[in-house]
Amino acid sequence: MKIVNFTLSKEHTKSFGIFQTDGIIDVGRHSGCRDINEFMAHHQLDELQRYAQLPADLQLSDISFLPVIDRPGKIFGVGMNYAEKRKEFNETSDAPTLFVRFADSQVGHNGIIIKPASSSQFDYEGELAIIIGRTGRNIPAEDALDFIAGYSCYMDGSVRDWQHKWYTAGKNWPATGAFGPWLVTPDEVGDPQNLSIKTWLNDRLVQNDTTANMVHSIPQMIAYISTFTQLSPGDVIMTGSPGGVGKSRVPPLYLNDNDTIEVEIENIGRLTNKIQAAASAAA
Amino acid sequence: MKIVNFTLSKEHTKSFGIFQTDGIIDVGRHSGCRDINEFMAHHQLDELQRYAQLPADLQLSDISFLPVIDRPGKIFGVGMNYAEKRKEFNETSDAPTLFVRFADSQVGHNGIIIKPASSSQFDYEGELAIIIGRTGRNIPAEDALDFIAGYSCYMDGSVRDWQHKWYTAGKNWPATGAFGPWLVTPDEVGDPQNLSIKTWLNDRLVQNDTTANMVHSIPQMIAYISTFTQLSPGDVIMTGSPGGVGKSRVPPLYLNDNDTIEVEIENIGRLTNKIQAAASAAA
Repeated sequence: MKIVNFTLSKEHTKSFGIFQTDGIIDVGRHSGCRDINEFMAHHQLDELQRYAQLPADLQLSDISFLPVIDRPGKIFGVGMNYAEKRKEFNETSDAPTLFVRFADSQVGHNGIIIKPASSSQFDYEGELAIIIGRTGRNIPAEDALDFIAGYSCYMDGSVRDWQHKWYTAGKNWPATGAFGPWLVTPDEVGDPQNLSIKTWLNDRLVQNDTTANMVHSIPQMIAYISTFTQLSPGDVIMTGSPGGVGKSRVPPLYLNDNDTIEVEIENIGRLTNKIQAAASAAA
Repeated sequence: MKIVNFTLSKEHTKSFGIFQTDGIIDVGRHSGCRDINEFMAHHQLDELQRYAQLPADLQLSDISFLPVIDRPGKIFGVGMNYAEKRKEFNETSDAPTLFVRFADSQVGHNGIIIKPASSSQFDYEGELAIIIGRTGRNIPAEDALDFIAGYSCYMDGSVRDWQHKWYTAGKNWPATGAFGPWLVTPDEVGDPQNLSIKTWLNDRLVQNDTTANMVHSIPQMIAYISTFTQLSPGDVIMTGSPGGVGKSRVPPLYLNDNDTIEVEIENIGRLTNKIQAAASAAA
């Protein structure tokens, strides 16, 4: 299944549903629970199968995409997790590089990404995002895939001139993280360590790799993170970006007003967002 | 005023109130709002003055302290913010060192701090915590103090062997951050940059400095953070720890089972916690 989180364009109410070729089944309306975070706190996404045979309630033109999970309790970023990226940034630590993104820094598919006025180094990072489906602590790597509700694309927009070695200030500007278009359940993704991952800036291919080249595998990341903190339904792990980001290029290649950035991952989909330069320093 | 956040020992219900010498006025009961986060989302803490003349409802023996704010939306740690600490850790960056702590890593005054089983370098850090009282973005330093609801003590327990230069994994183990005993409103604190701050480990004075020695002042930190993210009522900023932490000592001095760690800040109070070693790797 593909699960979309959205607002209804007319009513401005929130809901979520199942995306199929003939349209969207509005699970929020059918189930009475219009909040995907709340639904996931009490149910497995598999349970949505019971709605999958219903006729479509909505077309794409009826909705605006929200971030796949709009209020994750915890969003972890794993930096320096592809061999090429590590070379570009001279990273040598064996431990996963971990930072935190706040939920209010996110937009959905087709949402406007804001380039901060006080940055001249706003960079793209295309990433595979994991969405956690079950509560866990000290999850063994061999069981880790059972804790995944699904996968999506993430554009982890990075304000390099504020990033520093602790990341926090570079990863939390409003509307710098795009998360979508939808969650795809594991049965449709197949082996998550064998997916092509590509980023396009204005139709130019700027990142092109496979998730097979992750340094820390998805099970290893879940095991590592759950050693020190609880993972809960709706939590998100951005699994790192391949080489080819703007900062590592000569000359550097940063995001600017009116650019289009796209992240496509095999078996998942393509996340598309426009960049808008903040009108003033107040954004 | 001193505002305490607590559970009633008998009923196991949550509330918050005003701490005075003759006991605690249970504001949760009088106002009908028992959640300090929710109260702060809609009110300034000054409004609690209306309850301050009521007789005490509770004695200390009736309550267990919760973290001053038990579910902050955002908890920022500012590392390397005292001159001595920077020397000890060879920190040279001009930008504030910023990391994130999750709300579920916190305990209150007298709560048990858990030393992780997989750490042999669990360290203490006594800190002044700021609690935000108003929503703000791009807050000018000259207005920043107006956004503070109050101050408290924080023991930012740090798992050095998991900390790395990005901090996340070292600062988020369950029950490693102690926050209390209470929030003290700015009128009772006076100049927050002129407070004595001390940490005791088993009655031995291990940190002893003044908040005058912060590298980035409180207004500067609020201005910096609010440049890239919104600050909201109940958000917390831990303003950094003075020199003298365990890792920088020869030989190092770490926290162990049955230790008592205390953080005392002038005009605020003394936060006391016992350390318990996790019984197994599952904590």
